[in-house]
Amino acid sequence: MAGGGGTRLWPASRRKRPKQFLPLLPGGRTLLGATVERLSAIAPPERTLIVTAANQVADVERTAPSVPRANIVIEPEARNTAACIGLGAVDVLRRDPDALIAVVPSDQYVARPKPYAESLERALAASADGRVVTVGIRPTGPETGFGYIEIGAESNGAFAVERFVEKPDRATAERYVASEKYLWNSGMFFFRASRILELIHRELPELGAILDELRADPSRAAARYPKAPAISIDYGVMERLARDEVAVVPGDFGWSDVGSWAALDGLAAPDAAGNVSLGDTVTVDARDNLLYASDGRVVAAVGVHDLVIVASDDAVLVLPRDRAQDVREIVKALEKSKRESYL
Amino acid sequence: MAGGGGTRLWPASRRKRPKQFLPLLPGGRTLLGATVERLSAIAPPERTLIVTAANQVADVERTAPSVPRANIVIEPEARNTAACIGLGAVDVLRRDPDALIAVVPSDQYVARPKPYAESLERALAASADGRVVTVGIRPTGPETGFGYIEIGAESNGAFAVERFVEKPDRATAERYVASEKYLWNSGMFFFRASRILELIHRELPELGAILDELRADPSRAAARYPKAPAISIDYGVMERLARDEVAVVPGDFGWSDVGSWAALDGLAAPDAAGNVSLGDTVTVDARDNLLYASDGRVVAAVGVHDLVIVASDDAVLVLPRDRAQDVREIVKALEKSKRESYL
Repeated sequence: MAGGGGTRLWPASRRKRPKQFLPLLPGGRTLLGATVERLSAIAPPERTLIVTAANQVADVERTAPSVPRANIVIEPEARNTAACIGLGAVDVLRRDPDALIAVVPSDQYVARPKPYAESLERALAASADGRVVTVGIRPTGPETGFGYIEIGAESNGAFAVERFVEKPDRATAERYVASEKYLWNSGMFFFRASRILELIHRELPELGAILDELRADPSRAAARYPKAPAISIDYGVMERLARDEVAVVPGDFGWSDVGSWAALDGLAAPDAAGNVSLGDTVTVDARDNLLYASDGRVVAAVGVHDLVIVASDDAVLVLPRDRAQDVREIVKALEKSKRESYL
Repeated sequence: MAGGGGTRLWPASRRKRPKQFLPLLPGGRTLLGATVERLSAIAPPERTLIVTAANQVADVERTAPSVPRANIVIEPEARNTAACIGLGAVDVLRRDPDALIAVVPSDQYVARPKPYAESLERALAASADGRVVTVGIRPTGPETGFGYIEIGAESNGAFAVERFVEKPDRATAERYVASEKYLWNSGMFFFRASRILELIHRELPELGAILDELRADPSRAAARYPKAPAISIDYGVMERLARDEVAVVPGDFGWSDVGSWAALDGLAAPDAAGNVSLGDTVTVDARDNLLYASDGRVVAAVGVHDLVIVASDDAVLVLPRDRAQDVREIVKALEKSKRESYL
């Protein structure tokens, strides 16, 4: 899944240039590029499909050149993950009626590809019996920005799901982590293509009907897909399944959803003064900063510490690392003042 | 004088784009434009000459459109202020053998144009008897970044100069200011055109000979001017004059040499949180910052205070206000790492 937009890494990420296309990794690599490369351990690029928006096809081609052009599935309009996954499943089913599908977001970071591939293999194997499987991340701290999954008994290489829980408050998150019975919801899903379409039909019949039309006549996508209900696969399907229809495989592979500039921390090595630099930077007496410069630009910092400093082509952001989430305040202020070109 | 380059306001100012051409004043006005406008109280644009470098003629024309093109005097090469002033004086003398000249830098800021014009009129009047006159600024604090002038007895509307002193240390500067006998050297000079050429002949005969050649044949400038000694008018002439040949008129008109980003403070009004903004900016929970965005760019700051944040077309600078002078450390680092395009 490489559609949608995003401003959590504003001003580098924009509505029309989300973070999976940015050179956020050492050597100018992108999250999408790294995801495709990582997935090649379980499926070659010929069997990797990328669902994206029409206006992002060029970005996909540029950042994932190993994936054949025919494997880029275009969403005529963003309709959230249930529709996106349904669209992809229709395409997969046409190629292989027995296919198992691993659905992964294109904008996540994984530090250790080997255990990542192992977890995904295990999740795919568990989905062969018709269950919908997800990979749950072993929490590294009481994060309040993620949904959590309470795990139950193990069966057939995967754990039962007791329940999905929404983003908790801090105290609840601490309790979850201490209990060792909760995993983070990673947004990765594993199922048989035919099975997910059955479940969509059952839980989201409106979407099911539209997907049937597209199976019969793909050329109707432009007209019909925009009518699909805009609902997430979590709300629309996952959380409605019976206990024996869903399972979770734990994962522990240095995962990050790169949800704010502070998360960039783990993606590149700091220098001796603790500054993490992406792009061209110069520092003097500066320590523990996170510096990002887009191509052809330089960021210079003197005597500052614990700041995030981001220079994109037309905008600059400066804020303390521990307020990295507050980029949303700037985005709101720009919206309010109608400076849309910066969004 | 609008030649030379400068990096004290890096990254907005560059070697090839010094600060007099930047939109540093409210409404996007430039220091050069404001200087020409201010001078119109004592001489119209038709009698204002601008000495500049060949590659800055377009910048001069753009920022000082009221000055006739024929009044732009081109330095074939930067040779410091003695040669620059000599070149200008030769041009003035050709137009008017009796002319008095006011020489002013183009990159200074003046808050109160009326007393400025009065001081300049007084200095020009004092120069009519053949003295070289300067305007000395009444110190507003023990600045260590300026040369000082010790004043003596008054005569004919101006004070004698006891001596010129180099940039003092802090304790000395405090003593100077407390004594009320010292003024800041403003770099403004007033003299009869014929007289400054006489004095250049006497003190800098090599330069005098070159200027004679240019008087006889202006077309020789490209060949001869680059041979001129590169020396300042202060070292080369002013400090060598006899006591009765030089005088100083005190000035008190909200003067600034705009020598660092911290000086921008006085040039625009702060908002309610104490942030001074030049260009397009957005702030959230930020106070007492100095923010500069070049055209078509936005600078966004959250939760920071007492910083200078500058976004030019290809470079960003962040540093604490009280370290504004340390931009030179960045310039040095860029020179050392051969990133010349940013200088």
